[in-house]
Amino acid sequence: MARRRKLYEGKAKVLYEGPEPGTLIQYFKDDATAFNNEKQGTITGKGVLNNRISEHLMTKLAEIGIPTHFVRRLNMREQLVREVEIIPVEIVVRNVAAGSIAKRFGIEEGTVLPRSIIEYYYKSDELGDPMVAEEHITAFGWATTQDIDDIIALSLRVNDFLTGLFIGVGLRLVDFKLEFGRYYTEDTLQIVLADEISPDNCRLWDVETNEKLDKDRFRRDLGGEREAYQEVARRLGVLPEAGPMDLKGPKAIQ
Amino acid sequence: MARRRKLYEGKAKVLYEGPEPGTLIQYFKDDATAFNNEKQGTITGKGVLNNRISEHLMTKLAEIGIPTHFVRRLNMREQLVREVEIIPVEIVVRNVAAGSIAKRFGIEEGTVLPRSIIEYYYKSDELGDPMVAEEHITAFGWATTQDIDDIIALSLRVNDFLTGLFIGVGLRLVDFKLEFGRYYTEDTLQIVLADEISPDNCRLWDVETNEKLDKDRFRRDLGGEREAYQEVARRLGVLPEAGPMDLKGPKAIQ
Repeated sequence: MARRRKLYEGKAKVLYEGPEPGTLIQYFKDDATAFNNEKQGTITGKGVLNNRISEHLMTKLAEIGIPTHFVRRLNMREQLVREVEIIPVEIVVRNVAAGSIAKRFGIEEGTVLPRSIIEYYYKSDELGDPMVAEEHITAFGWATTQDIDDIIALSLRVNDFLTGLFIGVGLRLVDFKLEFGRYYTEDTLQIVLADEISPDNCRLWDVETNEKLDKDRFRRDLGGEREAYQEVARRLGVLPEAGPMDLKGPKAIQ
Repeated sequence: MARRRKLYEGKAKVLYEGPEPGTLIQYFKDDATAFNNEKQGTITGKGVLNNRISEHLMTKLAEIGIPTHFVRRLNMREQLVREVEIIPVEIVVRNVAAGSIAKRFGIEEGTVLPRSIIEYYYKSDELGDPMVAEEHITAFGWATTQDIDDIIALSLRVNDFLTGLFIGVGLRLVDFKLEFGRYYTEDTLQIVLADEISPDNCRLWDVETNEKLDKDRFRRDLGGEREAYQEVARRLGVLPEAGPMDLKGPKAIQ
């Protein structure tokens, strides 16, 4: 097999050149980080589970007309995606106060917000992903007002759909992070959903018990990280039928 | 108990005066009708099941900020709702071709539509609920352009959310019918979701088998109507713990 060119390595994923122009291979690692890399660890099997969970959610979102970068899953840890120009702004949609918004505004975690709130964070590890306002995004040229309008409309649709989907499996979608990219075809520009959607970037609480089934188990040393990710995959009907060895999977090609 | 005044009796529900001004009691019957009353029957327990299913869906929709007329469930067959001025237009949202759209346009049932399509039907038993265009709605004064804009925005949100919720329990939301009403507070007018949401007005197909779990079982003489409604309630986690006698419930107060 030809050696693939690594284009980018992030905290939880690696991007390789794809098999044809305009495509990339997105490889899911088991590495977990939190608090802007201050905390590092491994959740064995996480990459395999997130690959499946994100495939499932991206596919269902595409079915309701949300454009995404996802093309198809290739194997246990990789998926083929369209190459897009990533907009360097993380979109956080919050339905219930948890994490940084609870701390910043002194709101008790678990408080239902008066309405869903969209926040923007500038993607920059060096700067610690600072929160920004629309003013910064347009002034610094990260996105246009039209891009932001599209991103807000898509994010709200994603929120409605995923909130419903997770309620259907007994999970409360507390908040989540999205990334978008620009996808150019011959003469048009389309804003598409990129990155991944998984317990790495969604807070998911059991509807009955409020148990956390997401990366907060790692951030807060609650234990049972892998079991939590497996439970989310199981409820969504996408738990791979595999033994523990399979979940470990091959090492990322360096 | 004081005798309640019946305000309206429809095909599947009765509306009584509520306990306080501005409220109504919505009673769910077991009667089933189709093809504008040409076909009539009974699905034992349907009223009990639809009461629960509609309570669940209206409650979850309210949680994402969709205003509804639903206040609370009172008992096995009744719920308290706000009195609203019903807009005499049924909104049908279609994701997959089935029923009249398949017939009207010669599309094979089960074909995924190019995008979700919203249709309007004028609520009139005498006229057989004819399909209408926005032009008719505004010209005849049934709703204003602003009302229609609100109704479309709400209907699309309901569609995204319910599509997700039903996928979560292995059901495909093929299409559904909504009704809206005007709710007046001191100085504002709000458009709110009214009526009910249940297998009486949603087409729901099992994701794996395409089995119909909705009123088409009655319309098309497929049998197993009650079991289908029970299965929907069971998957949503709202199947009442009750024997067959309880499901029969009390007679509507005449």
